Amino acid sequence: MGYPDALRDEVEAYLEGLSFAPPGATDGLQEAMRYSLLAGGKRIRPVLALATARAVGLPHEAVLPYAAALELVHTYSLIHDDLPAMDDDDLRRGRPTCHVKYGEDVAILAGDALYAEAFHLLLRSTTAVGAMDPADVIAAAAELAAATGVDGMVGGQYIDVAGTATTAQELRALHALKTGRLIGASVVGVLLLGGIKEPATMAYRQYATEIGVLFQIVDDILDVTGTDADLGKPQGSDERHGKRTYVSEFGLDGARELAARCHQDARTTLATAAAAHDGRADELEQITDFILTRTA
Amino acid sequence: MGYPDALRDEVEAYLEGLSFAPPGATDGLQEAMRYSLLAGGKRIRPVLALATARAVGLPHEAVLPYAAALELVHTYSLIHDDLPAMDDDDLRRGRPTCHVKYGEDVAILAGDALYAEAFHLLLRSTTAVGAMDPADVIAAAAELAAATGVDGMVGGQYIDVAGTATTAQELRALHALKTGRLIGASVVGVLLLGGIKEPATMAYRQYATEIGVLFQIVDDILDVTGTDADLGKPQGSDERHGKRTYVSEFGLDGARELAARCHQDARTTLATAAAAHDGRADELEQITDFILTRTA
Repeated sequence: MGYPDALRDEVEAYLEGLSFAPPGATDGLQEAMRYSLLAGGKRIRPVLALATARAVGLPHEAVLPYAAALELVHTYSLIHDDLPAMDDDDLRRGRPTCHVKYGEDVAILAGDALYAEAFHLLLRSTTAVGAMDPADVIAAAAELAAATGVDGMVGGQYIDVAGTATTAQELRALHALKTGRLIGASVVGVLLLGGIKEPATMAYRQYATEIGVLFQIVDDILDVTGTDADLGKPQGSDERHGKRTYVSEFGLDGARELAARCHQDARTTLATAAAAHDGRADELEQITDFILTRTA
Repeated sequence: MGYPDALRDEVEAYLEGLSFAPPGATDGLQEAMRYSLLAGGKRIRPVLALATARAVGLPHEAVLPYAAALELVHTYSLIHDDLPAMDDDDLRRGRPTCHVKYGEDVAILAGDALYAEAFHLLLRSTTAVGAMDPADVIAAAAELAAATGVDGMVGGQYIDVAGTATTAQELRALHALKTGRLIGASVVGVLLLGGIKEPATMAYRQYATEIGVLFQIVDDILDVTGTDADLGKPQGSDERHGKRTYVSEFGLDGARELAARCHQDARTTLATAAAAHDGRADELEQITDFILTRTA
């Protein structure tokens, strides 16, 4: 199966074209932001957003600011997760992490700034596209905020560092917040942007949850089976950090079985979702398959 | 003279009543957020927002989510500024700073979460008040994002830690970003929420800039003249950190003169602003005076 590379290229070009502030005294900050933002990768979240736009019949230009905002937020979360006080990782995508390259203070601020600029971009750009209803833009921005707050990404990261998730159920809940909510928002936020109401959104919401879980299971598997070169960081870091993962809970084969089942569920749910409104879901199918079969 | 304490009490009650997420695995994160958020203080930014609402004839309930969001953002910025990698401060308002109390990892996440919840609160609550135009809510939220991004608060903090501001003009530019933009947004965001257009906004914008500068000059003076008890942290920390301030640039008397002039300008501008639309600006006058005469 392939990956919708054309969508990734579109996202990449848009991210490269972003300007956060006039040149001047904050150049060093902007450099650190762009260093982490433009480090490559599959851009799964924005690509999901664009693929969802296609599935529900929204033009790309209406969704690109939201899609890019997702990647800004994701980049900020990686920068903060890598900090010495957090996971203390030196390598990310084969390059020194932001704090190793620019210092801890600049890395904290680069993360903070990316988060601010995500909302800035979304709120100032989306309204410029005439077709969008402001109330829908607010709903999408509120979804992004909720997905990254206490009951979302940051809350999940807190549970992770607190080390309080001990049962398999708590582990699932942790990752549903830490990883799943933002992946879910990559799909759901686009539906909100398009003013698409229930019941069409229900199946997509479920699909988004399922690929979020799938994503994390495969992440845990890759941490054990991936090569350093593919991962861009030392393999086995979960075990060294003593993290509970799907692999530590269910074994490698168990985790692979779980991933396969989760992938099948997601494909079935996606077919239901797309059928409900005659949507073109082939790109979402490709991404769903890629999340299962990726090697990094 | 005097401070509009009734507005502060209203803000305080609203902040105390905020709930970020259901109780559960993120309780420890929510405790750290509330520890820093509910540490008292004059709540100048939200009080400014409510006073501006009065001046332009908007109901408080329409502005309270935005006002509270300003304080959440301000609290997040204090938590991150206090971190060991930044200013490394142990005391804030007479109590251990967030990272001293809860650890550096939790403090970073508490700041991140407060920022997310600021937008979450603003975007989900303001639309619940029927009278608001969604396009105006977007404009206010975009102002908050811009005021806290690269060309705002975080950019200013970057210039501060980079230590590149060496002339008096660069110093002013630094503080205009680091402190002035959020204080400005406390006024301007309310005008945007109310859909108030030029020319009424122009004079208020200028007023907001002037009180932002005034605020910083007085901050620098208090760091030299204030008592530890009043400040809630050791006096003289700017000098120990080798920071360039209005006092280091112009001397104590020079800074005081500058503050008096800036206060006079702000009062004059405010009178012009309020006259343009028959506004009731007595609370804004009180706050303007307080910013000059405060002792902490």
